[in-house]
Amino acid sequence: MPKKTVKPGTDRADDRVRRSKEAVLETTYQLLMEAGLAGVSVDEVSRRSGVAKTTIYRHWPSRTALLLDACSRMALKFDIPDTGHLRGDLVELASSIVALLRSKNFSSVLPSVIDAAERDEQVAALHSRIHAEHMAPLYVVIERARQRGELPRHCLAAEIVAAVVGPLFYRRWFSREPLDDAFVRAIVDRAVSGSR
Amino acid sequence: MPKKTVKPGTDRADDRVRRSKEAVLETTYQLLMEAGLAGVSVDEVSRRSGVAKTTIYRHWPSRTALLLDACSRMALKFDIPDTGHLRGDLVELASSIVALLRSKNFSSVLPSVIDAAERDEQVAALHSRIHAEHMAPLYVVIERARQRGELPRHCLAAEIVAAVVGPLFYRRWFSREPLDDAFVRAIVDRAVSGSR
Repeated sequence: MPKKTVKPGTDRADDRVRRSKEAVLETTYQLLMEAGLAGVSVDEVSRRSGVAKTTIYRHWPSRTALLLDACSRMALKFDIPDTGHLRGDLVELASSIVALLRSKNFSSVLPSVIDAAERDEQVAALHSRIHAEHMAPLYVVIERARQRGELPRHCLAAEIVAAVVGPLFYRRWFSREPLDDAFVRAIVDRAVSGSR
Repeated sequence: MPKKTVKPGTDRADDRVRRSKEAVLETTYQLLMEAGLAGVSVDEVSRRSGVAKTTIYRHWPSRTALLLDACSRMALKFDIPDTGHLRGDLVELASSIVALLRSKNFSSVLPSVIDAAERDEQVAALHSRIHAEHMAPLYVVIERARQRGELPRHCLAAEIVAAVVGPLFYRRWFSREPLDDAFVRAIVDRAVSGSR
């Protein structure tokens, strides 16, 4: 039996495949951070990761498939706070979003995803999945507040989410003003008091 | 004197220069709409406009200079409303912003500007100029409301602007939810009532 061949399906082969896929994804993600979606080419990923283009194309049928896979690393899970009142829960969640917006990795790449989503439905679907995951905890705490009677039955959760998250995104990407604690509290106050 | 040469500085020469610059800018702007900032090349502008690359580079020293000039067409002047109260003025301005967000031209190109601004200071400066022009009327109506005594002296105009505009931008580019009149009124109500 030859010693150097590693049969597909064996542990060692699986391990090698897993490591090379991981190297490709990590390199793609790094390139995304540096240059945005438009700046990533399979040539460059192959050069930097040392994984052959043919191997890359064996795992991902197209550049888009690879980009989508790498982008899905941008989705984070936020813990769902339970301070006992809506204002406290929303301040905690808004602060987690601010931390995400301050991380260069996330906040400098998202605009390239938003831009590509304008012209590419696959990217739009991916963004919409990442976005929904990030917003889910806000809907949980709002629904809990409604059940506690803190909010009127008719009030729209999606309006509260937009009133909290919109101003944070606005400051990070549009007006580029500071995202300090005072601003977070002021925005949450407006969102909550206007919903009563 | 040869009949067919047109001396620089004469009316006909000026006119020809003006027309060819206009054709280049218009073509660049069209390409921007179709493909975003990253999709515009001087080659393609030259091909589509019929203006030679050497002529384009005579007027704009670089692709970036041409892009900046074409992008500056994105800035619009909004009329400053005067309904007599802050809520009415903000609903009018927010509705103008919604109209801008509905125009495919503006709203599908802006993300490519935001994306490029993350990595290019000239684009960041341009975006910041366009943004300031769009926000200026909001600051005018908020200051007028403060002088009328509708708002406390200590309230921060920039917070009100973020509370109104943030949720509109959020729905257009992030959650992709509808931007209807009811939403505009609900957002303005929160922004105003929370500022008192």
